[in-house]
Amino acid sequence: MWKFDENIYLENARLTYETREEIEKIADEITEEGFKNIFFISVGGSIAIMWPIQEMLKQLTDIPIFTEQAGELVLTGHKQLSSDSIVIMASKSGDTKETVAAAEWCKEHGYRVVSLVGTPGTPLEQLSRWVIPNKAKNGVEFEYIQLFMLIFKLLNNAEEFPAYERFVNQLEKLPENLLRAKKQFEPTADEIARKYHREPYNIWVGDGEMWGEVYLFSMCILEEMQWVRTKAVSSSEFFHGTLELIEENVPVFLVKGEGKRRVLDERVEKFCKQHTKKFVVIDTKDYELKGIDDEFRWLLAPTISSTLLVDRLARYYEKYTGHDLDLRRYYRQFNY
Amino acid sequence: MWKFDENIYLENARLTYETREEIEKIADEITEEGFKNIFFISVGGSIAIMWPIQEMLKQLTDIPIFTEQAGELVLTGHKQLSSDSIVIMASKSGDTKETVAAAEWCKEHGYRVVSLVGTPGTPLEQLSRWVIPNKAKNGVEFEYIQLFMLIFKLLNNAEEFPAYERFVNQLEKLPENLLRAKKQFEPTADEIARKYHREPYNIWVGDGEMWGEVYLFSMCILEEMQWVRTKAVSSSEFFHGTLELIEENVPVFLVKGEGKRRVLDERVEKFCKQHTKKFVVIDTKDYELKGIDDEFRWLLAPTISSTLLVDRLARYYEKYTGHDLDLRRYYRQFNY
Repeated sequence: MWKFDENIYLENARLTYETREEIEKIADEITEEGFKNIFFISVGGSIAIMWPIQEMLKQLTDIPIFTEQAGELVLTGHKQLSSDSIVIMASKSGDTKETVAAAEWCKEHGYRVVSLVGTPGTPLEQLSRWVIPNKAKNGVEFEYIQLFMLIFKLLNNAEEFPAYERFVNQLEKLPENLLRAKKQFEPTADEIARKYHREPYNIWVGDGEMWGEVYLFSMCILEEMQWVRTKAVSSSEFFHGTLELIEENVPVFLVKGEGKRRVLDERVEKFCKQHTKKFVVIDTKDYELKGIDDEFRWLLAPTISSTLLVDRLARYYEKYTGHDLDLRRYYRQFNY
Repeated sequence: MWKFDENIYLENARLTYETREEIEKIADEITEEGFKNIFFISVGGSIAIMWPIQEMLKQLTDIPIFTEQAGELVLTGHKQLSSDSIVIMASKSGDTKETVAAAEWCKEHGYRVVSLVGTPGTPLEQLSRWVIPNKAKNGVEFEYIQLFMLIFKLLNNAEEFPAYERFVNQLEKLPENLLRAKKQFEPTADEIARKYHREPYNIWVGDGEMWGEVYLFSMCILEEMQWVRTKAVSSSEFFHGTLELIEENVPVFLVKGEGKRRVLDERVEKFCKQHTKKFVVIDTKDYELKGIDDEFRWLLAPTISSTLLVDRLARYYEKYTGHDLDLRRYYRQFNY
């Protein structure tokens, strides 16, 4: 595969899965202490992978779930947030400005924070009550896996996710499946990037548990890392404005999920097939998950799209644009 | 003013304010019946004006508030939604497909719906337990006024918004202030539209209680009614991707609020002033609200931006593009 090391990937998978016991212990401690609601708090790419989980939880738990912007929360507070809450944060670098400020603010207020921290010894680690070491060098799917372990163990403890043991045992097989998905997607990624990398404007669509994926790839990858202009819109909102922009030469990328909201994606698909010649569908259903029960597929669908888009498609954009994924004009280049 | 009838506007204001007693009676009935949380459920422009209120309520009430897409909810349900909830919906036409389906679904499940209905005798009216007639022919501010009356009366009944009487008395003076704001904005609207109506891509930014405004104007007005390409991003997220697209010829429109999140807008402002020559700031603070206490300004800021953008700026775009605001390629033109 293009600019990809399978051994490192499988090593990242191993490093991630071996945190299972640690995460479950944290979940058990949280359950023992008790809590009345859960707040996901982050910014950018990290909050984007919390949204899919929040969307899933609407269907799965009686625990009230809130997802808030780190930068806003420290200014406004939130009436539902209290010392009875559990705050979940994540930062790959461990020093994301807004997230660190929010963690400090939580600590001052006596709110309990559990964090996924990608870099040891960083401020977020020091400010968190519990730390989940996110040891994988890269791969959004590994963050999903850790969040799944934490959240679904908490639900299991609350007798809301009885399939937890089976789910988490099967999670170990996810990376080898994602690796196979990447390989299968390789020619498609090449073709999409070759065909569309010069497009001046790109519409990305998805919904529910896939919305965070669409948001993440369009804003944090195409905009931030490739300086490509995008518009992201949810499948449920597509027909309330953005549809009017569709013409036969306007590229639309639809990321289809496998949950109950899939019919909303299908409605967008039907429409776009008729009105643009530049229509790309990324359907997680096309990728097999061997050794994983079908009932878990809708939960794992965001990990499939992440592995295809954030890793593979981004690399192929880079190949054709010649624009290094690490190049930034502004981000973290100076203070603003 | 360009294509504007002051008398109709003031008549719409009168028709709206005279629903005060009816709305307060509904709020009192709801309080008497009791409820454990509030769900805002709608789609498109109607959900966009619920988001600002949800953002305000994070700071103002212990009542858990949720805002959900009508089209998603009927597919997935939501574990927090029950017969103990109050569902608030809105539809100008009264027959918005997704909203009507959600109202039917709520009725089947025994969930109590209170609706703002713009057109009498329509399906949403028939499916709602309580109906607030939204008699104003147009003007998003009038929908805000009715939602404010309902929500803040509910909060007042819960002893959470003691200033209610003063607030709602002063609300009567809002339309005359908004009318003055429109007049003040007139030359600016003309200038913005003249200068930017041909731009191939426009970034719109705002945050918190102004986010719904940014979302609404960019998607439901510029995209839907003018076929103009936009990207909307919150001030808190701007620095996590979209900033990299800024160049001196990329137009950025910032809608500044007056609440605690204003510092996030100021951060965007400082950055954009340095990096694009096409930078427009819409600041509600520039518009006086005579007879209204300063402490209420942050709550009313979205009504100011709505009156300036959805009404005035849209009309001036139409003037320069020559594209009738009522023209659609697809929306409601056929089934999809």
